[in-house]
Amino acid sequence: MQKALAYASEFNNRFVGELGEFLRIPSISTDEAYAHEVRRAADWLAQEFTRIGADTVTLHETGGHPIVLAEYRAGDELPTVLIYGHYDVQPPDPLDLWTTPPFEPTIRDGKLYARGSCDDKGQLFMHVKAVDAYLASGLPLPVNVVFVVEGEEESGSVHLRPFLEEHASDLDGDIVLISDTSMLGEGIPSVTYGLRGTTYVEVLLTGPNRDLHSGVYGGAVENPINVLARLIADLHDERHRVAIPGFYDDVRDLSDDERSEIRDLPFDADAWLRAVGVGAGRTEDGYTVLEATWARPALDVNGIWGGYQGRGAKTVLPAKAGAKISVRLVPDQQPDDVVALLKRHFEEHTPETTELTFRNLHGGHAVVVDREIPAMRAASDALEGVFGRKPAFIREGGTIPVVADFKQVLGLDTVLMGFGLNSDAIHSPNEHFGLDRFHQGIASSIRFLDAFGKRV
Amino acid sequence: MQKALAYASEFNNRFVGELGEFLRIPSISTDEAYAHEVRRAADWLAQEFTRIGADTVTLHETGGHPIVLAEYRAGDELPTVLIYGHYDVQPPDPLDLWTTPPFEPTIRDGKLYARGSCDDKGQLFMHVKAVDAYLASGLPLPVNVVFVVEGEEESGSVHLRPFLEEHASDLDGDIVLISDTSMLGEGIPSVTYGLRGTTYVEVLLTGPNRDLHSGVYGGAVENPINVLARLIADLHDERHRVAIPGFYDDVRDLSDDERSEIRDLPFDADAWLRAVGVGAGRTEDGYTVLEATWARPALDVNGIWGGYQGRGAKTVLPAKAGAKISVRLVPDQQPDDVVALLKRHFEEHTPETTELTFRNLHGGHAVVVDREIPAMRAASDALEGVFGRKPAFIREGGTIPVVADFKQVLGLDTVLMGFGLNSDAIHSPNEHFGLDRFHQGIASSIRFLDAFGKRV
Repeated sequence: MQKALAYASEFNNRFVGELGEFLRIPSISTDEAYAHEVRRAADWLAQEFTRIGADTVTLHETGGHPIVLAEYRAGDELPTVLIYGHYDVQPPDPLDLWTTPPFEPTIRDGKLYARGSCDDKGQLFMHVKAVDAYLASGLPLPVNVVFVVEGEEESGSVHLRPFLEEHASDLDGDIVLISDTSMLGEGIPSVTYGLRGTTYVEVLLTGPNRDLHSGVYGGAVENPINVLARLIADLHDERHRVAIPGFYDDVRDLSDDERSEIRDLPFDADAWLRAVGVGAGRTEDGYTVLEATWARPALDVNGIWGGYQGRGAKTVLPAKAGAKISVRLVPDQQPDDVVALLKRHFEEHTPETTELTFRNLHGGHAVVVDREIPAMRAASDALEGVFGRKPAFIREGGTIPVVADFKQVLGLDTVLMGFGLNSDAIHSPNEHFGLDRFHQGIASSIRFLDAFGKRV
Repeated sequence: MQKALAYASEFNNRFVGELGEFLRIPSISTDEAYAHEVRRAADWLAQEFTRIGADTVTLHETGGHPIVLAEYRAGDELPTVLIYGHYDVQPPDPLDLWTTPPFEPTIRDGKLYARGSCDDKGQLFMHVKAVDAYLASGLPLPVNVVFVVEGEEESGSVHLRPFLEEHASDLDGDIVLISDTSMLGEGIPSVTYGLRGTTYVEVLLTGPNRDLHSGVYGGAVENPINVLARLIADLHDERHRVAIPGFYDDVRDLSDDERSEIRDLPFDADAWLRAVGVGAGRTEDGYTVLEATWARPALDVNGIWGGYQGRGAKTVLPAKAGAKISVRLVPDQQPDDVVALLKRHFEEHTPETTELTFRNLHGGHAVVVDREIPAMRAASDALEGVFGRKPAFIREGGTIPVVADFKQVLGLDTVLMGFGLNSDAIHSPNEHFGLDRFHQGIASSIRFLDAFGKRV
């Protein structure tokens, strides 16, 4: 293992350059106009897997973007680590807020700026380079490694679960390893054992059959924007709880032990909020910032539109208004049940003057992993080896639906060993990833594969 | 007068062609990018006034778009009619809903399709052609005519009132004549004696300093869209009344006589709503469609935006959300007072987690004109002469702020003799104007000038 670590140190700059090639491909999976770029990213990755010595590399076609499978066999008697990641990225808009273009990777102050630098091309590539370091330095891999890399994570991973179901017998691993999460803070290695789930819906309200003059019709024709505002406002109550009846029925609340553990973590909520320009947070009454974002559901409007958005004044009574709405879920909420509750809210409260179109875009279960399993201990050892301190065991507010899928379809637990920071601006302009963390991530992966091989 | 009427009939096609030239100029005053086109429309109109024989034509520079003044002197002993109109137009978007391009005038089924064909280039041009018909057929004008044509009606007429104040001594007219309103229905000549006023504001809410990942921050950071939805929802109560305290304090309610008169008008509210695809209207409780749109205030959100509006799902907790909001006013509401009420609503209810920016875009007073003045009787005679039936005296929900300005600054009443139909789609895609009404309007203008000259 030491040889692999030394190799990774020596060729770190070259690894960064290779990552840059990967980041230059605008593989935006949510926008069909970029379908060929998503494909190009898959091809690039497959070639890279082959180049560093994979036994087999396969591009699995799906109804959407392909899944890249790469196998590195070390021995039938050895355990197998499935490493999951995604090669697609979020849309980069608003483009004018980027200091340097999102698909021209640029290093400033030791950080690599590009869409996907952290989420998730950068973090996925750490594991690719860990395997590269073993093989290139002449060492056998301490475990079998199978990469499962999809191109639809940012658009709901719709084809991954069917793929896992179809290939369940081939994917005979022992654990799943994913780096697509964040550390609690700079210099605090972290293992994430809980994730929120998500649902994402789109509602469209249609009133008149065209945009009307608000002087002529205002006061007689119901305004779809006004209706939509009311429907959205009614989703929350005064305590900042979701006001849909039955919404909290399945929510598993935090235990007192977990709450006190969370409160003991080195986390400065005020500083965390200040870093994004927020003076005062707003959580569900009775919960701290960490409790609320890690273990309580949250409903957010992700986008809203209707009528005239240009400069100046246009006195229009619009024909349509729409919104994208997501709910972050916690155990034991079922995505389909929550979508049904949302749908009922909109159906029951949309007035007869307005027509509702309700679309369910995607969803995923929340997950909590047992911290006592061998892979969790291997991750702890690996991170302690790199950082010189035991990792924090944390939860995270984001969603990686495939973690639930791996459990449900393959019966596998997942170790989430993430190296992001909340300041990395993933999903935002100027996404970046610290080069120090890229290197620490490679070293942690090298150590994890070694430690897991010995523990199982 | 008969010679002028005959001339107008004979050269009607040529008049339509001339109007087409005017309509080809995209004089969108609300968008600075079109400033040179607005200027081009003013120049075109000034040349037209000169061409048909004006004594003086002046382009008055303002801080915005110029005001075109054209004088046709018939004799100091004769009364003077000020004819007001506007040469600017509404933005044409959404462009994809136009059957033919908005600035390529096209005749289909006896209707002229183009942005501005009805509002207001087409209706203004009727009066230009009425004067043209008198002069070209060799008749003296029966009254002095002064055209006052602005290029900022669609963006709030901000420079017209200062202009009127500055030139009050030169503008010594007896009545103002405007065609920028609608008829009650096809074939029903109408004189409008009441208009609603308006205020138009823009609110912007800023939360975090950048768009955030809704998984990481959702539940701890207040979402500006959710806040905006609540603030908008709270603007109305269950009875569909504006819920801001004090909002109705200055509202002059309809008298029982006026209500019964309005109910006797030949107006089919259901058909009027069906024509714009609305099955059920929604008025303030206790008021009919005509009462609500003519004589009750109405608050509409004209536009809303925030977060991700593209295809698919983007899990963003947005930094900003904004809305454009207008209120239609009735006598005796003061625009500034209503803006102050709106501002207070937003200031008092915006939570400390979010920063409010409130902008007052423009406003204008409501107006009601005495129906017994000579000019109203002249209008009635003129319309009866053209249509063979007495006109309906109606009110209208839209706003022409300059009507209040003419009264306040010059002490002049206004006759609103409009030839639009609600089905003309002004402010909407596929705006059009019936060629029959264009011709009837020219004849009505010819007759009005004659009748007013005899009555005063």
